Amino acid sequence: MANPTPTPEIVDIHTHMYPPEYISLLSARDTIPLVRTFPSSPDPRLILLEAELPSLERALRDPAAPLPGRPLTKHFTSLPQKLSFMARHNITTSVLSLANPWLDFLPASEAGPIASQINASFESMCASSSSHSHPGQKLFFFGTPPLSAPAPTILASVTHLTTLPHCRGIILGTTGLGSGLDDPALLPILHALADSHLPVFLHPHYGLPNAVWGPRSAEYGHVLPLALGFPMETTIAVARMFLAGVFDAVPALRMVLAHSGGTLPFLAGRVESCVAHDEALAAAAASEKGEKRRRRTVWEVLREQVYLDAVVYSEVGLRAAVEASGVDRLMFGTDHPFFPPVGGQGDSEGEWESVRLNVEAVERALGKGSEEAGMIMGGNAVRVLRLFEE
Amino acid sequence: MANPTPTPEIVDIHTHMYPPEYISLLSARDTIPLVRTFPSSPDPRLILLEAELPSLERALRDPAAPLPGRPLTKHFTSLPQKLSFMARHNITTSVLSLANPWLDFLPASEAGPIASQINASFESMCASSSSHSHPGQKLFFFGTPPLSAPAPTILASVTHLTTLPHCRGIILGTTGLGSGLDDPALLPILHALADSHLPVFLHPHYGLPNAVWGPRSAEYGHVLPLALGFPMETTIAVARMFLAGVFDAVPALRMVLAHSGGTLPFLAGRVESCVAHDEALAAAAASEKGEKRRRRTVWEVLREQVYLDAVVYSEVGLRAAVEASGVDRLMFGTDHPFFPPVGGQGDSEGEWESVRLNVEAVERALGKGSEEAGMIMGGNAVRVLRLFEE
Repeated sequence: MANPTPTPEIVDIHTHMYPPEYISLLSARDTIPLVRTFPSSPDPRLILLEAELPSLERALRDPAAPLPGRPLTKHFTSLPQKLSFMARHNITTSVLSLANPWLDFLPASEAGPIASQINASFESMCASSSSHSHPGQKLFFFGTPPLSAPAPTILASVTHLTTLPHCRGIILGTTGLGSGLDDPALLPILHALADSHLPVFLHPHYGLPNAVWGPRSAEYGHVLPLALGFPMETTIAVARMFLAGVFDAVPALRMVLAHSGGTLPFLAGRVESCVAHDEALAAAAASEKGEKRRRRTVWEVLREQVYLDAVVYSEVGLRAAVEASGVDRLMFGTDHPFFPPVGGQGDSEGEWESVRLNVEAVERALGKGSEEAGMIMGGNAVRVLRLFEE
Repeated sequence: MANPTPTPEIVDIHTHMYPPEYISLLSARDTIPLVRTFPSSPDPRLILLEAELPSLERALRDPAAPLPGRPLTKHFTSLPQKLSFMARHNITTSVLSLANPWLDFLPASEAGPIASQINASFESMCASSSSHSHPGQKLFFFGTPPLSAPAPTILASVTHLTTLPHCRGIILGTTGLGSGLDDPALLPILHALADSHLPVFLHPHYGLPNAVWGPRSAEYGHVLPLALGFPMETTIAVARMFLAGVFDAVPALRMVLAHSGGTLPFLAGRVESCVAHDEALAAAAASEKGEKRRRRTVWEVLREQVYLDAVVYSEVGLRAAVEASGVDRLMFGTDHPFFPPVGGQGDSEGEWESVRLNVEAVERALGKGSEEAGMIMGGNAVRVLRLFEE
């Protein structure tokens, strides 16, 4: 992507970091998520997923077994590394977020104070970036609410996030307060986020139960839980919200769905048809008393309340996402620092193929240098996430 | 869809029936799949899915609870009804298949003889259709192999199916011999199917574990397991085959994926990227001895070995399927008799909205009456499934 002429603004809205406090937290743990060192590995290993448990257990028994999880490189933790990655990919602005599984695993009493530390750390990184070596780069972030804390603590955190000058929303997993995003107990939090104009970046972590990957899954590396489990988890979470009427109950809620909505653009038609043909839903609707509010369709939710990142790695997927949500609702992302180059594919200090695939998807679907490509590469994020203000 | 001028051939490759022997089988069972009568229902109820177990248990306890499963109407069992449905939707040829869960649940000793009966019943329906009241209609079928029987019985069934004049392939669920379609023990069966030029119509049934739908799933009718569980199951099954190298090992295997590939067209880019960026797969590839065969990409498999039905209920999904697989590889289907009109939406003897949605998706994506729409509505099926020969 070396480019001798000035490039337009490129905004990365899907880019993660683990600040030092978070790494300390993981290093002190015995169960996932955790960080652990192995004699055969120069970098500590970051082990996050349920699907990585079998390989963790093998590696603890057998020093010759493949290492579990992924190397915890400086790409996960270093702000200069983030800024260098941005420069190498012509990214002018990044909206950072804590990577999964956020603070989901914290005891109720610890979640509030730790969330405050983490959010302060992100605010400080964003505020300090101008003193680094790449002038013109800007950083914002999605905050992390302490979801395992009591509701008043969560609501106080949302209020506090609105006072942090570089915060532009929150990142949220699919479990919410523990029972999913269709949990009525989550509604006050979603109302608070909507009232505070903080969009919710919905991101997967838990995937699907290991059993669905079958007895040979150990031979397939991380592919099934990451390539399929993650987007399917996101799709299920949003569909549950839709069926529970959350989008209708909180009309000002704005959500940015990771990985171009998981699979929602492709499955939206099937969801609508299954709703329209469901005997039980039809009976429930017929028995409703009083004034009946029209249920909005999945398509309306996609075009009115949902934004999608453009992390889908193909022209086919990108075009479907644009057709489902609108070209004014997609926003480029990299998923850095996940998916670094492996093997002979290149240097982690050079261009990343995982980034190139997503740039090419936009260029092929909408035309390199076109106005529409520019919207997805940066313009939409500047508008939707108010990235011109500090 | 009333049309005063002659219509071109419309072929429905995704259309199910339960012959009488199968209904007898289900009516004698105490566990799913089963057929059961309830005093409050004119039709017996057909209860197939793990996700329908909680509502079955409620209905057995409480006569006022909503009825479980779906009504077993004559649409599931009657050949005249099938022919009438075809006539009302201008469908000239149908490729029938036994609906899920096929014969997966049979004891090993019973599977072979029952498969023979079922396949004979389908052959007989197809042969007799010309004597019915809608001249010009043709029927073919996908056979059902006895997968729970010993391998020689399964192989004998495949050989027998090649002798039935109206058989054009087989229908297969995702469990194969019990461990999934990436099971090496399935390879001889897949080789036999490929050598016999019998395409495999891959169809979901098992969905995902109930836990992923969350504590409120009873409020959402059948939507989550059908709209999401089914296509996700198909996607996982095909991805496991791909990662196990099954498509490379059996290059003559041809598969038709239900519901436009589940979610594969949308996720193919992510699958490819996750494979390319997987540390464990890269290490395994690097340690391989001898001549290394190039692994084909998901895109190559989609364009060379896979066909997709056009049962995706939206223009967005249909276009993604066409872009992923090619306009010469999609084939129209209805999923009849599932998704009949409910409530005030129309008469089950009139036009079905679930059919109209799929017809409109083709027309909107490719242009009503266009050559490409005609390929998907019938031309491809005639060519791929050899529907001109008897």
